[in-house]
Amino acid sequence: MQTEQALAYARENSDRFLNEYREFLRLESISTLPEHRDDVARTATWVADQLHLAGVSHVAIMPTAGHPVVYGETKGPAGAPTMLVYGHYDVQPADPFDEWVSPPFEPEIRDNYIYARGASDMKGQIFAHIKAVESLAKQGALPFTLKYIVEGEEEIGSPHLGAFIDQHRDLLNCDFVCNCDAGIHTEDVPAITYALRGLAYFELEIRTATKDLHSGLFGGSIHNPAQALCELIAGMHDAGGRVTLPGFYDKVRALNQEERDAIAKLPYSDDDWKAMTGAHALWGEKGFSTLERIGARPTLEVNGFLSGFTGEGSKTVLPAKAMAKISTRLVADQEPSDVYAQLCAYLKQNCPHTVTWEVRELTHGKGAIMDRKTPAMKAASDALRTVYGKDPIFKREGGSVPIVAMLQDKLGVDSVMLGFALPSDGIHGPNEKQYLPNFFRGIETYIRFMAGLR
Amino acid sequence: MQTEQALAYARENSDRFLNEYREFLRLESISTLPEHRDDVARTATWVADQLHLAGVSHVAIMPTAGHPVVYGETKGPAGAPTMLVYGHYDVQPADPFDEWVSPPFEPEIRDNYIYARGASDMKGQIFAHIKAVESLAKQGALPFTLKYIVEGEEEIGSPHLGAFIDQHRDLLNCDFVCNCDAGIHTEDVPAITYALRGLAYFELEIRTATKDLHSGLFGGSIHNPAQALCELIAGMHDAGGRVTLPGFYDKVRALNQEERDAIAKLPYSDDDWKAMTGAHALWGEKGFSTLERIGARPTLEVNGFLSGFTGEGSKTVLPAKAMAKISTRLVADQEPSDVYAQLCAYLKQNCPHTVTWEVRELTHGKGAIMDRKTPAMKAASDALRTVYGKDPIFKREGGSVPIVAMLQDKLGVDSVMLGFALPSDGIHGPNEKQYLPNFFRGIETYIRFMAGLR
Repeated sequence: MQTEQALAYARENSDRFLNEYREFLRLESISTLPEHRDDVARTATWVADQLHLAGVSHVAIMPTAGHPVVYGETKGPAGAPTMLVYGHYDVQPADPFDEWVSPPFEPEIRDNYIYARGASDMKGQIFAHIKAVESLAKQGALPFTLKYIVEGEEEIGSPHLGAFIDQHRDLLNCDFVCNCDAGIHTEDVPAITYALRGLAYFELEIRTATKDLHSGLFGGSIHNPAQALCELIAGMHDAGGRVTLPGFYDKVRALNQEERDAIAKLPYSDDDWKAMTGAHALWGEKGFSTLERIGARPTLEVNGFLSGFTGEGSKTVLPAKAMAKISTRLVADQEPSDVYAQLCAYLKQNCPHTVTWEVRELTHGKGAIMDRKTPAMKAASDALRTVYGKDPIFKREGGSVPIVAMLQDKLGVDSVMLGFALPSDGIHGPNEKQYLPNFFRGIETYIRFMAGLR
Repeated sequence: MQTEQALAYARENSDRFLNEYREFLRLESISTLPEHRDDVARTATWVADQLHLAGVSHVAIMPTAGHPVVYGETKGPAGAPTMLVYGHYDVQPADPFDEWVSPPFEPEIRDNYIYARGASDMKGQIFAHIKAVESLAKQGALPFTLKYIVEGEEEIGSPHLGAFIDQHRDLLNCDFVCNCDAGIHTEDVPAITYALRGLAYFELEIRTATKDLHSGLFGGSIHNPAQALCELIAGMHDAGGRVTLPGFYDKVRALNQEERDAIAKLPYSDDDWKAMTGAHALWGEKGFSTLERIGARPTLEVNGFLSGFTGEGSKTVLPAKAMAKISTRLVADQEPSDVYAQLCAYLKQNCPHTVTWEVRELTHGKGAIMDRKTPAMKAASDALRTVYGKDPIFKREGGSVPIVAMLQDKLGVDSVMLGFALPSDGIHGPNEKQYLPNFFRGIETYIRFMAGLR
């Protein structure tokens, strides 16, 4: 009864919800850029106001050593389960700006998609959840205890969240986590992610001289640092696409045949993947399918490379240094700290004597695998089945949500990954988008999911 | 007599000369950057005014399809030789700005060096020549016919100079060229360059997807373009430091033993070279000495590399593309157009099927070797010997002055490379400098050289 009323409320208020979502997307909460510090703070306030509007009893903006966490709580009946909802209100930088069709912080709707930085990752998801709570709370008391943590540093690796959880362990006590930083499989196929990759992200700098030199006067006498860095990076994969850092695969949990069979049955095609990315051929570690490579195998990526003159025209410089941002995606049971040691070992083995090198670890988080058979998983699965009219698929995710492993470690609770992003949303790149019908189905799913919690 | 008076005039006016040199250095004549177009034009006017002040009879700023050429002419006695003086008034960009001790366009003198972009390459050199002409012309008629071309596009590869020469062949008719874009060996050791390397400069772009992707969601399924470009660049040299572009060495003129012996006798040490560059080890093609590698062997350099996110912090992007600026330095008798074909052939052979590539040629010029026994070479050698008190050494230069090969081809004349830059001046990099005592010795040398022309 309360459920039907909540669903009706959500439908009646959908225009307002969409307008508020646009407001949220206009806030330039880029956590990694110091010049957006005030925007991030403004966004925290905006989220706190929204929780208050949704009827959450206690709302607080709680400081950390970095950007603040927005906390919310509504006590449920005695004996009812406690759900901790996780989300983040920060976003990635929006460059390259000139590849956006509409400006990244001026949301625009085209063909049922809303385009903006953060539309999918993850303002759309956490906002859908807040609107579901509002819709339910307007109809009466919630049948469970609700807690929210919405952080502002996920896109920079949640550097202060661990300390925050340690400090507020009692406050965050819960039976399970609903992590909204998640997605479904395709527009019409619901999914629940049960495994996530970890991340270890580094910056590597190579130097061969103390200053930039003239490439004619010195070319052929000093090792070119960009060339040296290229040689090092080229050597980080073998011909079969395997990462060559020493010991990199030692702790990787192998896929069993049952899980490989399940993955092989997922609705997926390499041709769709190519169409989505624009790649005319796929690539990766030999011996594994694309979905296995993304979800169950670790990878190493160059996220950025800079050396010398990169403006228009020609500058005949022999650069003094070259820099690469290099990150690895990890699977259970790899340890990010091991990767730092493996990268250093690789460099010690392979750096020519002509260069000096320096590695800085920028961010890291462990991978995670969740139990697929908990009551909360069942409630989520039921809600998705009702809304989408078909069984959700259970999938491994290539991305990293380090908070999931962190909450397993620190609070001893599993997360239900329930969100409505699509792999094709283009998150972290230009023209990020969210499929609007799924934003609204998301609100409906969250309502049914929460109504189903016992 | 006229010579001694001219030398006295130069000494008496040295303070003014230095002030005018500083004025010249303040002009931001960066030819490759469109936003400095007006500065380049202003600099052409400044040079024309200086030629007029120096007593050059006919001065003209002559348009090209790009930046203008400053032309000057003073007719000498019938039957006297004609010298065409070549110089350029444009400079390289000044980035990286934060590595300059004093701003690049605010010349500052420290320890007998003047620091500014263009101080050495080559405002100091062409200006010393103009001041030598002024000093001589004030004492009476010149004993030869003097012509000047001072161009504004050398640092972008002189794209319109060939057409200019073709169009004004009669005007530029001469017996030899004095090319001031040159240097000596060390502070006290005079030198004349008799060989120059050519240049072929390219921009290579690799694409694997149509947009930047999330490195977690897609990492392991799409070839990383930065990694692919690293692999291609790493393969462009073999373990012995030889360039692997197919056919790259086919036309290279071999060094004979006589010349190798002469190069081995030049005052040079690897330790000094390391101290000058800050490199703790040297690098290059096996089987050749450092001076041979720089002067007589072709090389391939990465001048710039850009892909993905290179700002502060961590962005988990799988870039869609990667770009490198790659240039080769060529020796006689390599053809720049051959190198374009060789690079394309290399890419066709080595590009994996997962990537698309595109090469653009940005600039090119041939290398050159000059006759060391002409009357003009002897006059230059005599002047240097008188001023420095020792015989000049004859050397091969690693840099490129494509105009030398162009004037050989189009006008059939050799160049005398007479300038006073030092290899340690840091040209094209931050903190470019010119040794001031050699600026003044340069004026004296040019005066004696011109007075010695018959």
